[in-house]
Amino acid sequence: MNEDIKIWGLGVGPGDPDLITLKALRILQSADVIAYPVLEGGDSIARSIIDIHMRENQEEMIISIPMEIERYPAQDVFDKAAVEIGALADAGKVTAVLCEGDPFFYGSFMYLFARLSAHYVVKVIPGVTSLTACAAQLGLPLAARSDTIAVIPGPLDEIILEEKLLGTNVAVIIKVGRHLKKIRDVLDKIGATGNAYYIERATFENQRIAALSNLQDDIAPYFSMIIVYMSGEVLELKN
Amino acid sequence: MNEDIKIWGLGVGPGDPDLITLKALRILQSADVIAYPVLEGGDSIARSIIDIHMRENQEEMIISIPMEIERYPAQDVFDKAAVEIGALADAGKVTAVLCEGDPFFYGSFMYLFARLSAHYVVKVIPGVTSLTACAAQLGLPLAARSDTIAVIPGPLDEIILEEKLLGTNVAVIIKVGRHLKKIRDVLDKIGATGNAYYIERATFENQRIAALSNLQDDIAPYFSMIIVYMSGEVLELKN
Repeated sequence: MNEDIKIWGLGVGPGDPDLITLKALRILQSADVIAYPVLEGGDSIARSIIDIHMRENQEEMIISIPMEIERYPAQDVFDKAAVEIGALADAGKVTAVLCEGDPFFYGSFMYLFARLSAHYVVKVIPGVTSLTACAAQLGLPLAARSDTIAVIPGPLDEIILEEKLLGTNVAVIIKVGRHLKKIRDVLDKIGATGNAYYIERATFENQRIAALSNLQDDIAPYFSMIIVYMSGEVLELKN
Repeated sequence: MNEDIKIWGLGVGPGDPDLITLKALRILQSADVIAYPVLEGGDSIARSIIDIHMRENQEEMIISIPMEIERYPAQDVFDKAAVEIGALADAGKVTAVLCEGDPFFYGSFMYLFARLSAHYVVKVIPGVTSLTACAAQLGLPLAARSDTIAVIPGPLDEIILEEKLLGTNVAVIIKVGRHLKKIRDVLDKIGATGNAYYIERATFENQRIAALSNLQDDIAPYFSMIIVYMSGEVLELKN
């Protein structure tokens, strides 16, 4: 059945090239075209992760996202890319779209998927997400038994952040970036900073981990995360 | 550095043997001993997932969990297993402990880790979790942009379930099992059943997916999950 699928969304994992799955690797290496979004003037993290796995001279399609529309989906860019990928499929060519982590876990792949899945069979290969990669690198379980986990995007405002933090056993704050100071202020306010951990570029060679109370920075890279143990099983085990 | 590590927690992924990572596979195949918990009288799902990847005659250690203490951690069993794995490490042998999905995502591995990490270097290899495997198999993104995700264990009581559901954009209810009827009742009450999807044994050969409103069952297997789109980006895209 898989032989008939011409369009794949491939989770390539959190950063370490060896954290790609056997399945994603096989599709990657057999695909005719490797596609990936690149923010204008930047590099593709997903492309760099799988660099050592590429075939020589494998065809690549760069989906260039203009800088000024970074903060909202570049719909016309995805329209155009979907047409191109669809045309490849019509011509019998297999395209694999690369996604850091997992395609359906906060990935822009969803915009391509929405366009293409109406006309083609599009299959997604799940990948290891930063969620569990960060816990593994930190050396602390994420959650156990009846613990709830909340995944909370850092761009949300203070009131919402506080509410979400207070409503869960374990919080994973993603997309920390320029919101680091705001997040620390909220955690300070609710007395949770002592059980918060900062993880930057988990499983990459330049990974960095710190107890949040030891971190002086006010801005973080995009690939950073804060895990907060508010209550529950892991917090009890840890303390 | 990895050559010095004698104890590994290996995420073997959600079910499909090809969803193991290259890293986990390499450690699995080079380990002296493969250890895994088995509920008395049952089978190990993790062991069955990696069956095709084992070396011939590779040594195995079964950590047998007595049936009557299924619902709380079998502390004496983990005490004993930790002593055995520690003794293997002292003898220079490498043990890989298998975990379905990811070792730190609701895995009983945390109990071994807590015991062993005080005396040995224990390293965890993250795996693809059922969280994103279910979304991939369902063919719907889990979350996007500023959506929050709540991971909610099904054994929690109705009031808590309702509160957690109403406090998130996307809810992933895990450990559904014998709580299916209760969960459906809560979803019915808050009018969310129409946007809820049931996924059983994601990526296994006997996988089953249904819109919750089409599902008549009151009991589900342990490896089942319900994804509910309460509000947010994916729900808008979907509707």
